[in-house]
Amino acid sequence: MIHIYFAAKDVRWDEYEAPLRKALDEKGLSYSLSDKCDDPSIIDYIVYAPNGPLKDFSPFSRAKAVLSLWAGVEDVVGNPTLKIPLARMVDSGLSEGMVEWVTGHVLRHHLGMDLHIHGQDGVWRDYVPPLARTRTVGILGLGALGQACGEALSALNFNVLGWSKSKKQLDNITCHSGEEGLKTVLRSSEILVLLLPKTPETENILNIETLALMPKGAKIINPGRGPLINDDALLAALDSGQTGHATLDVFRIEPLPADHPYWAHPNVTVTPHIASETRSDTASQVIAENIRRGEAGLPYLHLVNRTAGY
Amino acid sequence: MIHIYFAAKDVRWDEYEAPLRKALDEKGLSYSLSDKCDDPSIIDYIVYAPNGPLKDFSPFSRAKAVLSLWAGVEDVVGNPTLKIPLARMVDSGLSEGMVEWVTGHVLRHHLGMDLHIHGQDGVWRDYVPPLARTRTVGILGLGALGQACGEALSALNFNVLGWSKSKKQLDNITCHSGEEGLKTVLRSSEILVLLLPKTPETENILNIETLALMPKGAKIINPGRGPLINDDALLAALDSGQTGHATLDVFRIEPLPADHPYWAHPNVTVTPHIASETRSDTASQVIAENIRRGEAGLPYLHLVNRTAGY
Repeated sequence: MIHIYFAAKDVRWDEYEAPLRKALDEKGLSYSLSDKCDDPSIIDYIVYAPNGPLKDFSPFSRAKAVLSLWAGVEDVVGNPTLKIPLARMVDSGLSEGMVEWVTGHVLRHHLGMDLHIHGQDGVWRDYVPPLARTRTVGILGLGALGQACGEALSALNFNVLGWSKSKKQLDNITCHSGEEGLKTVLRSSEILVLLLPKTPETENILNIETLALMPKGAKIINPGRGPLINDDALLAALDSGQTGHATLDVFRIEPLPADHPYWAHPNVTVTPHIASETRSDTASQVIAENIRRGEAGLPYLHLVNRTAGY
Repeated sequence: MIHIYFAAKDVRWDEYEAPLRKALDEKGLSYSLSDKCDDPSIIDYIVYAPNGPLKDFSPFSRAKAVLSLWAGVEDVVGNPTLKIPLARMVDSGLSEGMVEWVTGHVLRHHLGMDLHIHGQDGVWRDYVPPLARTRTVGILGLGALGQACGEALSALNFNVLGWSKSKKQLDNITCHSGEEGLKTVLRSSEILVLLLPKTPETENILNIETLALMPKGAKIINPGRGPLINDDALLAALDSGQTGHATLDVFRIEPLPADHPYWAHPNVTVTPHIASETRSDTASQVIAENIRRGEAGLPYLHLVNRTAGY
């Protein structure tokens, strides 16, 4: 009998219990699953959300792994009581939703859609946008989500440049890495998408200096992590026209406070952390597969590298 | 020596002369090309725009073909003085631009983007859109443009239904035809894209009866032809909420008059016939290839079927 503790908010338990039981049953596992835990010492696996009740892993003396429901693990990776393997969520539903949101907002800016959405004033402004094949889109971060977005944008003929900490080789994305590579990508990107993990090295990666490298009027799209952007620097770049527009889905504080200048800025679109979310049916299959792997002595999927932080 | 007459507005001649000469030179043809025509009896090919100066083809006694710069030929196909072959424009630039515009506006409606573009009021509305795989998009018209849009939407996981007059078999589009097929497509389409040619049979294909078949709140996207829609019926459906939104790029009269109710309607986006346009470089290659074919006795590309009207 495998003992599984679901350590997340109540609303998640309501959402996940049925699909998680279904996925575990499909693996033929014999298990107990609960969102309550009277005796931590009998728990084998912890299904975990960083904003849930569990902060101290030390009482879980025989637990084999922590299986995160979230893709971003920055709030748990440094927890000193966590000594067992930690797996991130890599969910096909999460990836699909992100591709749809990113592709939609890139096309919105590429086509200059806002002019028409706002400008229903009887004036026939027949400016035909250039073709995507003449437009360069940069993607910072080439993990599962960045790669999937780059593939979709490349299929629409955009010229896609990508940047990651370690150099990658991908079919339809021109890949760069390192400090010089970052400058190369920023200098060419008319539209820039941020999909980096939050680490000490990526915090404030968009700042006064890096924003100044970009083409004048460039558009920023951030569905990644709020702290990737120095907010004061971005507001200054928007005010000066150096940055043309920012579409922001993630923020240092969420919900974004009602008096934050982003809300009122005419060249900012705030979306409320909806670019993508983990979907309970596909995510439950990933959790169940990792428990099957743990029981079979196989390596876990999507294991976090504690040193790198993601 | 092949004599080519460029019969279109002056602004088109300024745009096309250089790329057309380049494309003709690349085919190794010996030609004269002009936007003036003193002696119609010596002209071999007429490069033609329906809104240009030429209305009477009868003086062009030895001309071999009329090569349209436009994809839509409804304004010339019925001209009784036209007795020689007429070729439509099928331009890769036109198709790419259309795919980008259609995909962008489908994603805009799928994601509910307008809520955030308009709603920068400090309220955190965290409604996460469903995945594209649960969303059905209908495309009326499965010519080159309809097929290309359907392929792109299918690649983004949308469930794509298509309708055409004669039944087609396509890989990633569920194809319907005939009157019953039209009803099937309309009943399922949360978002509907109109890419039909304008013929007597397609005029007012969206009317009170057909709009009523659609799911309540469905979105209409028309980058095809203005007369496909009965405007009064659409306005009534928008007012009642039966139709949720219309994004219209083409109109019976263009520019759309400033006092037309579409401009003022809160659930209509007017775009000024920018969904796509023929691009002079790629279109010039199509014209040059057709002249090469005419001279070599080969069949013309994109020949119009006069009976069908497209």
